[in-house]
Amino acid sequence: MSLIVQKYGGTSVDGPARIRAVAQHVVKAREEGHDVVVVVSAMGKTTDELIKLAEELSPIPPARELDMLVTAGERISMSLLCIAISELGHTATSFTGSQAGIITDSVHGKAKILEIRADRLRDALAQGQIVVVAGFQGMSPDRNITTLGRGGSDTTAVALAAALEAGCCEIYTDVAGVFSADPRVVPQARMQQELSYEEVLEMAATGGRVLALRSVEFARNYGVTLHVRSAFTWEPGTWVRQEEAMEKAVISAVTHDTSEAKVTMLGVPDRPGIAARLFRALADDAVNVDMIEQNVSVQGLADISFTVPKADLPVATRVSEEIGRQMGASSVTHDPDIARVSLIGAGMKTHPGVAATMFETLAGHGINIEMISTSSIRISCIMREERMVEAVRALHTAFELDTEPVP
Amino acid sequence: MSLIVQKYGGTSVDGPARIRAVAQHVVKAREEGHDVVVVVSAMGKTTDELIKLAEELSPIPPARELDMLVTAGERISMSLLCIAISELGHTATSFTGSQAGIITDSVHGKAKILEIRADRLRDALAQGQIVVVAGFQGMSPDRNITTLGRGGSDTTAVALAAALEAGCCEIYTDVAGVFSADPRVVPQARMQQELSYEEVLEMAATGGRVLALRSVEFARNYGVTLHVRSAFTWEPGTWVRQEEAMEKAVISAVTHDTSEAKVTMLGVPDRPGIAARLFRALADDAVNVDMIEQNVSVQGLADISFTVPKADLPVATRVSEEIGRQMGASSVTHDPDIARVSLIGAGMKTHPGVAATMFETLAGHGINIEMISTSSIRISCIMREERMVEAVRALHTAFELDTEPVP
Repeated sequence: MSLIVQKYGGTSVDGPARIRAVAQHVVKAREEGHDVVVVVSAMGKTTDELIKLAEELSPIPPARELDMLVTAGERISMSLLCIAISELGHTATSFTGSQAGIITDSVHGKAKILEIRADRLRDALAQGQIVVVAGFQGMSPDRNITTLGRGGSDTTAVALAAALEAGCCEIYTDVAGVFSADPRVVPQARMQQELSYEEVLEMAATGGRVLALRSVEFARNYGVTLHVRSAFTWEPGTWVRQEEAMEKAVISAVTHDTSEAKVTMLGVPDRPGIAARLFRALADDAVNVDMIEQNVSVQGLADISFTVPKADLPVATRVSEEIGRQMGASSVTHDPDIARVSLIGAGMKTHPGVAATMFETLAGHGINIEMISTSSIRISCIMREERMVEAVRALHTAFELDTEPVP
Repeated sequence: MSLIVQKYGGTSVDGPARIRAVAQHVVKAREEGHDVVVVVSAMGKTTDELIKLAEELSPIPPARELDMLVTAGERISMSLLCIAISELGHTATSFTGSQAGIITDSVHGKAKILEIRADRLRDALAQGQIVVVAGFQGMSPDRNITTLGRGGSDTTAVALAAALEAGCCEIYTDVAGVFSADPRVVPQARMQQELSYEEVLEMAATGGRVLALRSVEFARNYGVTLHVRSAFTWEPGTWVRQEEAMEKAVISAVTHDTSEAKVTMLGVPDRPGIAARLFRALADDAVNVDMIEQNVSVQGLADISFTVPKADLPVATRVSEEIGRQMGASSVTHDPDIARVSLIGAGMKTHPGVAATMFETLAGHGINIEMISTSSIRISCIMREERMVEAVRALHTAFELDTEPVP
């Protein structure tokens, strides 16, 4: 009997009808002979509602108490799921993060898992029980309740799969799997049956929203195979695993992202250390810089462009203007109306010419590329936000990702 | 600095505005120089709503999971209260039942407290923190979450007051204190400033609804002084303590109760053991018998009457008819339309004539007494339900309980 970890997100357990459907699917896996550990998120909007209550009482609620508060959400969904499973004639036992032995550091609101002491879970499994664990939460060494931050339930599931040496970690969600592009932008987007950790990491970092970056990193580090699939159709979805095991597609996805803004410092006299000085100053003000590009003109003047989350734009602009003045820059501009479109594919490493095709495709549509950045399996271009949808569709077609009839 | 335990019920913390008001009152006690431990119930109807969700999934939810579910309610209210207190510039730390060291037996849904390991609470108090504890919940020796059943938050508060040797346990509620009768029935009812444990126990057992029987028993056993008072006016309310310390009023309250029904077995040949046989059979069917009365007529035939909770009436009637047939009773009747009206007062012990005055008062109103039972500080009469209100008002006046202007 192999062990499966199943994780269900908030929309998958939103209300008694959904919880009943999930219970049936859990029991199905158990009856097929698997040991089953289930990780659940809070129902629907519960977490948001609890945070809203807290914020009515204090603009900056103490982090320890906020964690205590929001962890009530998973407590509710996990016990309801156990009740629904019991109604189907199986024994399910729920465990909070602390009961499941999920030991984290003490950083409330975004704690990191230090260790999993899974003895109680192993005991319950050995007794033939279905184990249901609250996602997103743990306990610090000084026995305070912590939460793992955004995507925390995915991380709980992957960490448990690693600790219990599960054959697979199934991430159930409200979409069918991981797509070659956002289906709302590209109706012909296809669900990918198999992706590498690296591809999914690049997708998560460039606007893909199915899996949280952190849980995929965790899965890669511990070699946990992920299966992202629908809790509504129950059809097989996307497998995420080590690249070695896979046939490499050249391009697996086109992602897009409008969450960033661009700052440009123009006409800086080109001396060693200008970039260092600017980005140290930005780091000191906790501005999270993503892409960076520096060009030197024939006149010995440099232009430096970089992107930051839109929320950081005011601080980034202020800091850049200050540094620009000190360094004699001719001007600083900022621009929130940009989009980043990225091509991602593990096969890129061994297929030259991907970048050329990408640039030709965009040029063919008259789309101007303002910045470029690359990794070994990704090429990102910054462009006007209003051209983004056209660019994503054009690239999706150019790289032959549009859905074809299954042979 | 003395330690105060304050307990707030569900209506007292129902919503952000109420939680803010409670936070202010808690901080006031702290700023007056007290160490403060606060015990909270779940907000408003939260517990009922969670139970309703569970019952949508299973008619008989597993008790362990039901406890896990409903304990989310106090988790929410206690962390919100801490957040509100922090906004007032004080440090408050919340503790679940298990974090507070409340060790119970393993009877889910109505666990009994075995032990309180209050080290964490003592540490927090020593650091000058306000301690907020989830009411109604604990942890069993095998580390499962348990709940204490009806009135459980009062019990948590009293138990913590005993364990921490608090000077006083304040029970905040939505009424001003303990009244000489239900103010909805007797508009002239007065709030009693002081009552003995025994009086409050008799009141709780005969229809009074302010304090749960169990928490008063606990307070009596450990000598914890209670102060029942309003979380809306914040005025002083009713003190409940050892009788020795008090001036004894003859009568402190008139209570009423319509939750029971009467069964009568008529014309049973009077032989030793008939009562034993009937009540053994009822006990075997888990019928909870309250009052019992047996008369023997001159013909050597006995009539046996007893009262049971209305819910138990069908079973009680069936069992009585069976036993009645075996014992040759002439008939068995049952009657749900009864009420019990009780007089309670510690001074009764030393004032003869209370019963006589009670019976005369009822006779003066033409109210027929169907059954009588007494304890050293209580006299209860069963009568027609439709005469109950008149009886309560008449007795309240006869024993000079109607409100008088404060001198």
